[in-house]
Amino acid sequence: MNKKITARSQDFSQWYLDLIYEAELIDQSPTKGCMVMRPTGYAIWEMIQKNIDAKIKALEVQNCYFPLLIPEEFIQREAKHVEGFSPELAVVTHAGGKELEEKFVIRPTSETIIYYMFARWIKSWRDLPLKINQWANVMRWEMRTRPFLRTTEFLWQEGHTAHATKKEALEMVAAALKMYKTFAHDVLAIPVITGRKSDAEKFPGAEETFTFEGLMPDGKALQMGTSHLLHQSFPASFNVSFQNKENIPETPWCTSWGTTTRLIGALVMTHSDDKGLVLPPEVAPIQVVIIPVGPEAKRTEVMLVVEKLYEELKQINVRVTIDSRSELSPGAKFYDAELKGIPLRIELGPNDIAANICIVKSRISDEKQRIELEDAAQKIQTELQKFQNELLQRATLKRDSLIEEITLYKDFEPVLQAGKAIITGWCSDPSCEQELKKVKAFTRCWLETKKIDSCFYCKKPSINDVLVAKSY
Amino acid sequence: MNKKITARSQDFSQWYLDLIYEAELIDQSPTKGCMVMRPTGYAIWEMIQKNIDAKIKALEVQNCYFPLLIPEEFIQREAKHVEGFSPELAVVTHAGGKELEEKFVIRPTSETIIYYMFARWIKSWRDLPLKINQWANVMRWEMRTRPFLRTTEFLWQEGHTAHATKKEALEMVAAALKMYKTFAHDVLAIPVITGRKSDAEKFPGAEETFTFEGLMPDGKALQMGTSHLLHQSFPASFNVSFQNKENIPETPWCTSWGTTTRLIGALVMTHSDDKGLVLPPEVAPIQVVIIPVGPEAKRTEVMLVVEKLYEELKQINVRVTIDSRSELSPGAKFYDAELKGIPLRIELGPNDIAANICIVKSRISDEKQRIELEDAAQKIQTELQKFQNELLQRATLKRDSLIEEITLYKDFEPVLQAGKAIITGWCSDPSCEQELKKVKAFTRCWLETKKIDSCFYCKKPSINDVLVAKSY
Repeated sequence: MNKKITARSQDFSQWYLDLIYEAELIDQSPTKGCMVMRPTGYAIWEMIQKNIDAKIKALEVQNCYFPLLIPEEFIQREAKHVEGFSPELAVVTHAGGKELEEKFVIRPTSETIIYYMFARWIKSWRDLPLKINQWANVMRWEMRTRPFLRTTEFLWQEGHTAHATKKEALEMVAAALKMYKTFAHDVLAIPVITGRKSDAEKFPGAEETFTFEGLMPDGKALQMGTSHLLHQSFPASFNVSFQNKENIPETPWCTSWGTTTRLIGALVMTHSDDKGLVLPPEVAPIQVVIIPVGPEAKRTEVMLVVEKLYEELKQINVRVTIDSRSELSPGAKFYDAELKGIPLRIELGPNDIAANICIVKSRISDEKQRIELEDAAQKIQTELQKFQNELLQRATLKRDSLIEEITLYKDFEPVLQAGKAIITGWCSDPSCEQELKKVKAFTRCWLETKKIDSCFYCKKPSINDVLVAKSY
Repeated sequence: MNKKITARSQDFSQWYLDLIYEAELIDQSPTKGCMVMRPTGYAIWEMIQKNIDAKIKALEVQNCYFPLLIPEEFIQREAKHVEGFSPELAVVTHAGGKELEEKFVIRPTSETIIYYMFARWIKSWRDLPLKINQWANVMRWEMRTRPFLRTTEFLWQEGHTAHATKKEALEMVAAALKMYKTFAHDVLAIPVITGRKSDAEKFPGAEETFTFEGLMPDGKALQMGTSHLLHQSFPASFNVSFQNKENIPETPWCTSWGTTTRLIGALVMTHSDDKGLVLPPEVAPIQVVIIPVGPEAKRTEVMLVVEKLYEELKQINVRVTIDSRSELSPGAKFYDAELKGIPLRIELGPNDIAANICIVKSRISDEKQRIELEDAAQKIQTELQKFQNELLQRATLKRDSLIEEITLYKDFEPVLQAGKAIITGWCSDPSCEQELKKVKAFTRCWLETKKIDSCFYCKKPSINDVLVAKSY
């Protein structure tokens, strides 16, 4: 228990807010709906970025940078896109001391300006596939915001590709989704559910949208990112076309896929507890903290061993720090390490040194382990790997306990109220889906399974199972 | 010679523009004054970022992220700051479909919003020093833009620190400047000149501004970045204060320091030639290209050796690629590698393999080297290091040839016209400095030397030497 943090069981939503402020991931910003990311919060984003960036490059996608401001007229060109974004745009009307003749919007996403460039870069089938990505800030003027989960400005990456065939484009959509799923599992230790969105839930301008959804401990689904096959009308409205091998002009098939600082919100909600953050070692800015203990008189002697272990851990690329603050008691340091979500803490005092051991305490276990100082660094690295695996297992069990298979709509409400998500059958008719609004739930994505063979509402044959949940 | 690039001797300015478009560093953007950074240009920025970011972290500065939009009222709080930035601001007046009660400006720099946060984070001397940095996009509505050198939107890093004493703050200012100088020399191979700016040339709101200036081949100075000691009035206007050890409130001393995508412009101008880019290996996205040559019939055999060498180079972290495009002749590939500024190109054909060698051609030498295939990778790595050193030497000689020591103002104009910069003496009186406008030149920075002991204009005793030049 951390006294400054509301108990999770008492008020999940307040627990989340208390936690991200207390652990100093963010602070309140003077610009409404935006957030200030403090060093710990931003360091997590840097770990995420580094990891995803390597995966994006492995897909032979190259990073570029496009302007922040998009001519307002661009947004108007694709009807569905306008509809989706117009209410959320921030508009620059004045600059350089005068009113502008042409207004600009701050990018809510960059398809329009990127397709304008694609029209310059794509002439022939030889120019395809064209695969680019951008790391950037974007802005959507949201009414109700929530740190990391929904903010007016957020940081993200947006991949944009163009292909000669629909088949190739769909392969890219699937490759991006797979990359995200692997990342969520292996790095964030979040067991996500992936699948296609219904027409009502897809991206404005997309023919198909695939999503990866995390199921949060309150039973609400969080869309952690998406991968889209765009309508050809979208590149066509920017005159993107190529000469195929027969010299006939064709419109390429385009994809876009992105994920955002929202991932940090998913990370916090999935793993943390009443003591504070719990971070998977893969994204923890600090993986191990060494805390010298014992009487002040023996501190010099202890610090020699502490520093030796520190250097050995550094050597094998463990992100380690020593908490040598003299104004704090060991107890206060333990408390702080728990709040900040440092996976392993090591205690080292004169008695431990006499016994040739150090004490290792995992953030998610109540037991302390005695580890011999000889090759302690290697063993600690192994413990970090175990910690990472254990988090994923724990999160998978938790997620599975949050899902129930329910055949009929009439039984949905109590399950949703109890903080759970539902797997059910659906005929694919939007009017059945529409009924979910009454219980404040949504279809999240189509699943690959068909455990239930009738539609939850009309009872006609189901196409496939679908995940239904309340959502962020 | 590249036929698509104007000769540098004929028109330096057009040569620069032709080059950055032809080498595909950037493309024209539909948003006036902004640029689209293409994969090669952005990859150079990524190399720069990675390197500077590590140096910033070594100074114990932590990365954060602050909102893009700053309440307009913030900008008004510091008089000099308003004066400096008001004409350049882009203003968001509408958002979420309606006119805003409070307008926002897109950050031209973040001192104001960061000091608002500093006021929350700094309470006591224990909270100091506070050292943070942000990687972000900023916007200044410039009338005359030039890719990389002056653009409406640009990417940069901005370091912001607060200290208990002026002495400590000045040490930070010096440490940041030293970091930039080391980076420019060791990574960009640009021998920069560092020093303090005159009052007329310093940052609005700064007590002292230090600069690192590159001298471009046309004799114009390019301010590559700056490090400022801010007026205490600046944090004070945001109520930033701390209790000192005697419990008396004090205003901290703040610094800020930054560098931008402008560095890419400096890099291009300093080293490149009529064939295209020349990139120092430290920032070259591709350091080595292997080009298989010889008859098609022997290609399979050749590729075995090419791929072996490729793997060996990868192993020792050389950024290497194989140009196996079948539609291009070796000559066309050489031409392309020169345009793109790849430091070393390796030719490998059946005759070379029979002789157990490969042919290595440096981008800045006309001679080809025969290197034995046995431990070729190691030798190539050594060649890259030599290339890096040679570029710095070459650039240093060039820079030195572009500076003349001139005692009297009346002799300035022909020297400036001839595309050179001037070292002269100055009494520090702004009215003498003012006269430089008539010859379209500026003081760039104070130097540590005193080679000339009278002021160039009033002939009174000089304080120190000063660098005078036309500028970007």
